[in-house]
Amino acid sequence: MTTATQRILGVDPGLTRCGFGLIDMAGNRTASFVDVGVAGTDAADPLDVRVLRIWEATERWIERYRPDALALERVFAQTNVNTVIGTAHASGAVIASAARHGVPVAWHTPSEVKAAVTGEGRADKASVARMVVRILQLDEAPRPADAADALAIAICHGWRGGGTGVDATARTETHQGARPLAAARSGMTPAQRAWAEAEHRAKRGGRR
Amino acid sequence: MTTATQRILGVDPGLTRCGFGLIDMAGNRTASFVDVGVAGTDAADPLDVRVLRIWEATERWIERYRPDALALERVFAQTNVNTVIGTAHASGAVIASAARHGVPVAWHTPSEVKAAVTGEGRADKASVARMVVRILQLDEAPRPADAADALAIAICHGWRGGGTGVDATARTETHQGARPLAAARSGMTPAQRAWAEAEHRAKRGGRR
Repeated sequence: MTTATQRILGVDPGLTRCGFGLIDMAGNRTASFVDVGVAGTDAADPLDVRVLRIWEATERWIERYRPDALALERVFAQTNVNTVIGTAHASGAVIASAARHGVPVAWHTPSEVKAAVTGEGRADKASVARMVVRILQLDEAPRPADAADALAIAICHGWRGGGTGVDATARTETHQGARPLAAARSGMTPAQRAWAEAEHRAKRGGRR
Repeated sequence: MTTATQRILGVDPGLTRCGFGLIDMAGNRTASFVDVGVAGTDAADPLDVRVLRIWEATERWIERYRPDALALERVFAQTNVNTVIGTAHASGAVIASAARHGVPVAWHTPSEVKAAVTGEGRADKASVARMVVRILQLDEAPRPADAADALAIAICHGWRGGGTGVDATARTETHQGARPLAAARSGMTPAQRAWAEAEHRAKRGGRR
């Protein structure tokens, strides 16, 4: 509804690697790249030191770029049980940092993010990275993968909006996960349809 | 080894209710009560608002009392799957707050806490609350239960020490959970043995 450009910080939370991806989403829904990076912590360090490093990194990103929104990948209890607590600790630090700066936080599920950037909720990491490069007109895919994922989360938030609160995203996940490509495209802007068609052509043209 | 009094902030983490219990542990291992409270958040509020409230509460406790250590109950992935992510988010905010103030964070498992204050790793909440009242010489049990638990976590940390890092507490959990009362008592100070014996007499004297 707004025509103003929105600055969005996407965060792929994790203790070992936490990806940060910053984009500007124009009122015409054109996404442009601003910055990307990864905060890493050493698994040998005490947990409080690791959580502090993630918190400090979030503070630096927010204070430097003053984003209008921070979008996080939602942590699921069902997947990766061994690392889910650490990821949730990292997320808690990221959320606290954003909230204390008055930056609204939104959550998107992995399949929402994949569907938003590739049109396919079960896309693999390589497809997500390829579409991030295309949408943001980058020269190459950001490394490591967490950086590309963070940009994908930011793009997803720019196009979808909303996503505040755990229950809301849980509901969306159910529908989005099984959402067919055609239905996903029906809600697209002309720009989104253009890249979706480009992706479709690329897929037919040759796979690598 | 030190004879200085240590000020310990115990935290029973949670989004709906987060308990804070502050004690001073003297060099002779005598625990004395300083303050106790609970930070509550509304389940209807957005998750970022709730995490911020917990973060702000932790900041207030730390800035007001400058504890020497913060002790947290360790979050387990295996238990309470529905709430564990929220609890881990709250913990992440608590950890970030403590770490940025240079307050070392330690973790103790529920059975370590129960064993420390009651001599029994599977003690129920009422027994824990009763022993907290006795150890700290309170007039009545703090309400709600999260407040008593937070004090129990602080006492546990004062007597046990250590507990830094997730893997260390995971290892301890295995042994401590099945640790027999006699063995638990063998590591007690005279003061601890005194209350353990008082508790034993109270149990024989009459149950309510």
